[in-house]
Amino acid sequence: MSSYHVNESVKTCVRVFSEEGRSAYLRMDMNENPEGLPKEFVDSVLREITPEYLATYPEPGHFCRKYAARLGIKENQVCATSGSDTAIRYLMEAFVGKGNKVVTVTPTFEMYRVYCNMYGYEHVGVPYGSDFQIATEDILAAIDQRTDLVALLNPNNPIGRAFTEAEVRAVAEKAAKCGAVLVIDEAYHYFYPNTFIRLIDEFDNVAILRTFSKLFSLAGCRLGAVIASAQLIEYINHVRSSAEVNTVALLFGERLMDHPEIIDELIATEKEGRRYLISELERYGYTYYNQDGNFLFIEPKNDAAEVAKRLKEEHKVLIKTYGNPLLSRFIRISTGSKTAMSRFMEAFLIADQA
Amino acid sequence: MSSYHVNESVKTCVRVFSEEGRSAYLRMDMNENPEGLPKEFVDSVLREITPEYLATYPEPGHFCRKYAARLGIKENQVCATSGSDTAIRYLMEAFVGKGNKVVTVTPTFEMYRVYCNMYGYEHVGVPYGSDFQIATEDILAAIDQRTDLVALLNPNNPIGRAFTEAEVRAVAEKAAKCGAVLVIDEAYHYFYPNTFIRLIDEFDNVAILRTFSKLFSLAGCRLGAVIASAQLIEYINHVRSSAEVNTVALLFGERLMDHPEIIDELIATEKEGRRYLISELERYGYTYYNQDGNFLFIEPKNDAAEVAKRLKEEHKVLIKTYGNPLLSRFIRISTGSKTAMSRFMEAFLIADQA
Repeated sequence: MSSYHVNESVKTCVRVFSEEGRSAYLRMDMNENPEGLPKEFVDSVLREITPEYLATYPEPGHFCRKYAARLGIKENQVCATSGSDTAIRYLMEAFVGKGNKVVTVTPTFEMYRVYCNMYGYEHVGVPYGSDFQIATEDILAAIDQRTDLVALLNPNNPIGRAFTEAEVRAVAEKAAKCGAVLVIDEAYHYFYPNTFIRLIDEFDNVAILRTFSKLFSLAGCRLGAVIASAQLIEYINHVRSSAEVNTVALLFGERLMDHPEIIDELIATEKEGRRYLISELERYGYTYYNQDGNFLFIEPKNDAAEVAKRLKEEHKVLIKTYGNPLLSRFIRISTGSKTAMSRFMEAFLIADQA
Repeated sequence: MSSYHVNESVKTCVRVFSEEGRSAYLRMDMNENPEGLPKEFVDSVLREITPEYLATYPEPGHFCRKYAARLGIKENQVCATSGSDTAIRYLMEAFVGKGNKVVTVTPTFEMYRVYCNMYGYEHVGVPYGSDFQIATEDILAAIDQRTDLVALLNPNNPIGRAFTEAEVRAVAEKAAKCGAVLVIDEAYHYFYPNTFIRLIDEFDNVAILRTFSKLFSLAGCRLGAVIASAQLIEYINHVRSSAEVNTVALLFGERLMDHPEIIDELIATEKEGRRYLISELERYGYTYYNQDGNFLFIEPKNDAAEVAKRLKEEHKVLIKTYGNPLLSRFIRISTGSKTAMSRFMEAFLIADQA
């Protein structure tokens, strides 16, 4: 028995943190870029960093102005956050009332459910069918007057469902009718080129999330963003930390905006690796789902967990498996350069021998 | 009227963010180190950073193990956070029930009050007398059964009250009796050598906060820590982000633990600058309060706000002033190297001419 009060939802919230020591492996389990940004670019940004710069509280303005300009939005329509994980936290804190509902599809990015448990909100998960399909009508039906937030990953992870504009509009309208914010989490943007940023001028309740952890290859730096109507962003500013994003992440983010050719290069590298991986999977007769993010679902010939174990222990390759019965036959592979994909494929063919 | 629900405490929460463009000034307004870490040290740490390191989700283990070893505590008694600002947020989220009370002295670090407003908690501020004194009895009397958290900065900022062990024990006991956590915010540790870390084995409700923004000169990086009983830290882990501290901050933190001689050097540099500043203030007949952190309170001969304006506009020096009537006669100066202090003093004597 502790001598202090603990909020019940916090006490019972179960958290699972990923294992450490991942740098010794080829990392294809968390949808990072296994290789990262071009070395010359990284070194040129690091050369700008001085002791004084590190000693000074961060200033997000420079980055936000350049980012907004690149997205074609106003500066007051964006708020930089310490990863999109923190953005989700703030959206939950600002817009969901105690005991109210948060609607997502299930499975999706785990943190939506975790934050619901932590804050004592009711998580409503709209399930996929066994055919990996999900009907918009089921999502619409789950939204009611007690719903304060609806979150859709577009495309979803781990099952890469992408939503059409008509579907998103229908959900945004139903959400608005019920007083709920619709979060469209575009974590896999650039891999998946469509965006719904254009909706923020029309729907004051639509918030788009972006991360610099995926294509932009800065998962270690912690940089994400909320993009929404100026009023919604103002509320996020009410709940964010005073010194929200660290100064190194802001500098890398700003320099990426200055060098769009790096972004094109990252896209081309991933596309080439992905094409190569798909052609190899087809050559060896594998069933795979060509998801729209920087990941693929593959059905191995052997037990998925067993294949993952062999890849880790015998080949130093990390991949993602699932406890969920719908997904337990599959492995999820983050895609990257052709070099990384060919290292994976070589190991996979040995680990998954019949 | 927005089409979505906003929590009332969030809607009405007032936030003030500091002005940008501070790098053009000598920064003595936010208790940063105006010069930062030794350049060779910074460069040697930056040389370790690779594209793969930045692309990989952060792993706090290495840093936490070394930090715990240096503090003489167990690894499960510490949690690294994205600045101590975020640590305060987590303490509030985990341990304060809706509508319950948070007790601090007033004035103190502003964010305690801001988070109370944001989360809809009742902030109870125990005021200083006009003699800049505050009685422990007043703090004890403010703690009741509805109090869930008591926070003391030791020494306090902006008025540098430091608490004795007897005082802290009395507050910790009263807090435990009322089911409250006692937070001892040691932001100015190293400038002020005393610590109450030894109490965490005796009091399961005592949490110590540390920051790497002050002596460790990494305000831009965002690194702080909560130090407490293993059970309390476990609850903080329930609410923290999955990838809480960025990988660059963790690396700098770890290398500082590897190089205690840098810490000694930082302490010596600040002490020399502080001694110099005090001797100059005495030479020119200024009243000052020799606070225990890396800051001094000075009573200028002219209006404090006017002096601050002249320092900023004519000398490119930023200092802190206060609206609070108790403090409005004073300016607060962050202390740093003798070089920085002599640049300040030269400007101050001109800006504060009779």
